[in-house]
Amino acid sequence: MFKYLLSLFLLTSLTSLAQNRDSANVGLLFKESLTNGKAYAWLDYLSNRIGSRLSGSESAAKAVTYTEKELQNLKVDRVMLQDVMVPHWVRGNDDKAYMKSKGKKTELSCCALGMSIATPSTGIEAQIVEVTNFEDIIALGKEKIKGKIVFMNHPMNQNVIRTFTAYGEAAKYRWGTASKAAAQGAIGVVVRSMNISIDDYPHTGAMGYVDSIVKIPACAISTLDAEMLSKQLKEDPSTTVWFKQSCQTLPDAPSHNVIAEIKGSEFPDEIIVVGGHLDSWDLADGSHDDGTGVVQSMEVLNLIKATGLQPKRTIRCVLFMNEENGGKGGEKYAEESKNKKEKNIAAIESDAGGFAPRGFSFKGDSASMQHVMKYKEVLEPFGLPEWEKGYGGADINHMEDQGTLLIGFSPDSQRYFDIHHSALDTFDRVNQRELQLGAASMAALAWMISEYGVK
Amino acid sequence: MFKYLLSLFLLTSLTSLAQNRDSANVGLLFKESLTNGKAYAWLDYLSNRIGSRLSGSESAAKAVTYTEKELQNLKVDRVMLQDVMVPHWVRGNDDKAYMKSKGKKTELSCCALGMSIATPSTGIEAQIVEVTNFEDIIALGKEKIKGKIVFMNHPMNQNVIRTFTAYGEAAKYRWGTASKAAAQGAIGVVVRSMNISIDDYPHTGAMGYVDSIVKIPACAISTLDAEMLSKQLKEDPSTTVWFKQSCQTLPDAPSHNVIAEIKGSEFPDEIIVVGGHLDSWDLADGSHDDGTGVVQSMEVLNLIKATGLQPKRTIRCVLFMNEENGGKGGEKYAEESKNKKEKNIAAIESDAGGFAPRGFSFKGDSASMQHVMKYKEVLEPFGLPEWEKGYGGADINHMEDQGTLLIGFSPDSQRYFDIHHSALDTFDRVNQRELQLGAASMAALAWMISEYGVK
Repeated sequence: MFKYLLSLFLLTSLTSLAQNRDSANVGLLFKESLTNGKAYAWLDYLSNRIGSRLSGSESAAKAVTYTEKELQNLKVDRVMLQDVMVPHWVRGNDDKAYMKSKGKKTELSCCALGMSIATPSTGIEAQIVEVTNFEDIIALGKEKIKGKIVFMNHPMNQNVIRTFTAYGEAAKYRWGTASKAAAQGAIGVVVRSMNISIDDYPHTGAMGYVDSIVKIPACAISTLDAEMLSKQLKEDPSTTVWFKQSCQTLPDAPSHNVIAEIKGSEFPDEIIVVGGHLDSWDLADGSHDDGTGVVQSMEVLNLIKATGLQPKRTIRCVLFMNEENGGKGGEKYAEESKNKKEKNIAAIESDAGGFAPRGFSFKGDSASMQHVMKYKEVLEPFGLPEWEKGYGGADINHMEDQGTLLIGFSPDSQRYFDIHHSALDTFDRVNQRELQLGAASMAALAWMISEYGVK
Repeated sequence: MFKYLLSLFLLTSLTSLAQNRDSANVGLLFKESLTNGKAYAWLDYLSNRIGSRLSGSESAAKAVTYTEKELQNLKVDRVMLQDVMVPHWVRGNDDKAYMKSKGKKTELSCCALGMSIATPSTGIEAQIVEVTNFEDIIALGKEKIKGKIVFMNHPMNQNVIRTFTAYGEAAKYRWGTASKAAAQGAIGVVVRSMNISIDDYPHTGAMGYVDSIVKIPACAISTLDAEMLSKQLKEDPSTTVWFKQSCQTLPDAPSHNVIAEIKGSEFPDEIIVVGGHLDSWDLADGSHDDGTGVVQSMEVLNLIKATGLQPKRTIRCVLFMNEENGGKGGEKYAEESKNKKEKNIAAIESDAGGFAPRGFSFKGDSASMQHVMKYKEVLEPFGLPEWEKGYGGADINHMEDQGTLLIGFSPDSQRYFDIHHSALDTFDRVNQRELQLGAASMAALAWMISEYGVK
């Protein structure tokens, strides 16, 4: 009995000693990030010197070169570029729309949706049919829709606490309205921006066409103008909308994922990916989406190096290209990794903005999730109380069939959709401290997994 | 056995039924706040029409009249003003400072600290002695300090996760440096602003004098200029600083706390206070400190009324005057309440900014704390994971000796000290959704306490 008690005592002591050591190491990572972190300066360059980084653009290429060079400066074990062909869509410089009622034109704040086709150079004008979901389109049918412009006025649900839940529910209307409406004979679609606030900024984002259905142009209007247009239609159902856009899809372009890693000292074959996406939409410099994810992922390697911590497993930073309109970077990384039989045991993606950290969400087998959830005890005191089953990230999700534990870094989401994909997603809206806390949070979880694995 | 199992089953079902009902009611409060809340519009008026509200000022009086009227419009059971005499300190319009080395003057961004005396009209100029804590002042002593200006350059600790922890540790240097330095013969003090960021905004805030020690003028300089001055002193220890301020303390002025309440249906004598402070510093409109706390507290009553919920215990909104430079409002409320033998069973204060909610901190007897912590299960899914033993609030803390459970509403703290007490504390830095979530969080906890008490 005494022996049993003694070993129990020893076990407890050792465990709490290990936990003290883990807490101390995590503390080092946070201190380094808050005191000497490089993420904010990197983001400044990416946002203010390079700017928006739509796939296939010259600035996206510059972002590849810049981040590759900065990662090389960290003197990590390996830095490489991974070739990937990406869609190359370009906006014209003449997105314009107005509504017309009884001869009076009122301008609408609009932008072409990503991947949409152009209108004819004189624009298109037609009567407007307002709907709030796909069922409405089916119910109205060809009789009411043919030759008209469909106005998808589906507001994001402001009453859910997590804004990503509302986005998850609403984003399909940005993606899918064009083909649903075209199937009923519509000649164009106008979509209410995915934005919880009511303001005058249109938000772009990817849409897609169903192959067998004729392609029609699709644009977004601001939430303020969506409210105005809806009100106008109640007063005058014969209101028309005219819009014009000259965007085009060029041939696929060569581009790259940027990859860098610190080799594990004991299990170098077990890889923990930390990543964000290098490309951004073109209406602003893409600071929150996803400049912050890029520099936070780079920072993970910097913090590990700067603190002198030696991970047992390999920590690999992957800056994915083309998350916004194709996902080719994520696809390519997963595919090559599979071909090489690499073991990506876990992947942490930061693609939800650079706001104050709140926790992580996990997707994977339940044994791994249970195992990794134990690290909460060490990390929670660093401002990370929210750990839950959920979602990984658009880029890392391609690794799902490899058994990788997918982890989404969760910053506070309340302000994100105010700026997401709009002209408001700029550097001045990122807070240095919040950004650096996020980088440290990712580094801390990557570090814990590098020490203790995922099962 | 069967009977036992049955009653256990019934108990469980009833408990979870109650919890479902509680969740539904809390959901109603959040929905009402996010959809029809009035807090943001009230704050707009308070910040942009009335502006800064230093105790004793005309605008503080306007804030009393405005909030009283708006509370009357809610048709709650009672609205009243509580008389309170408050300190009346006023800033001059000529706070100015520069440092001088080898004949070259460099301007410093400065402001008089609240409650400081003025300098002579020509300012004061003297050699600078840099210190980082009170021990330094003692160690240097009269020999090194007499006739000089003491420069307290104590940076807030950027490495702690909760910024309030760093503030708690640093704020004593704003409050106490003048008398500590005067005791050694200093003629003035310059204090580094309580700000984690390095920028060019001076932050004011209250300082105090020890009665037996001669009063000397005290000002704050921006963190950027504190860094510059410190560097300059290393290059030229004979550097002097000149500063000038014409602030003054007028006779105490009559003012008011604003009080409104919804009577409890079953236990009207048990009171749950929700509050914030009406006064603010004078360098900006005081939107985060504490306009948000004021309108969130008013919103609690509005949400209860608008949802038709009937609290069993009384919910009382108290808008305290003079938190910033005297605490006379909090003192007065507690004193009168005690005289009337009122039972303030709990008090929730919002005075930590209007950012996204994270939870609550509690101060009180452990039985009450344990009891109320049970409500976490209902409230956590609404974005409130952080419940902990800690701090109440500067105004409600005066009720501590009445056995009141003191509760601080805890919003995210990362950006707060960037703006706190500076010219940056303006309406445009408050996010409507975050503000309304905070109001709903307070309403939800007040509602749970009104249903189930504190023990």
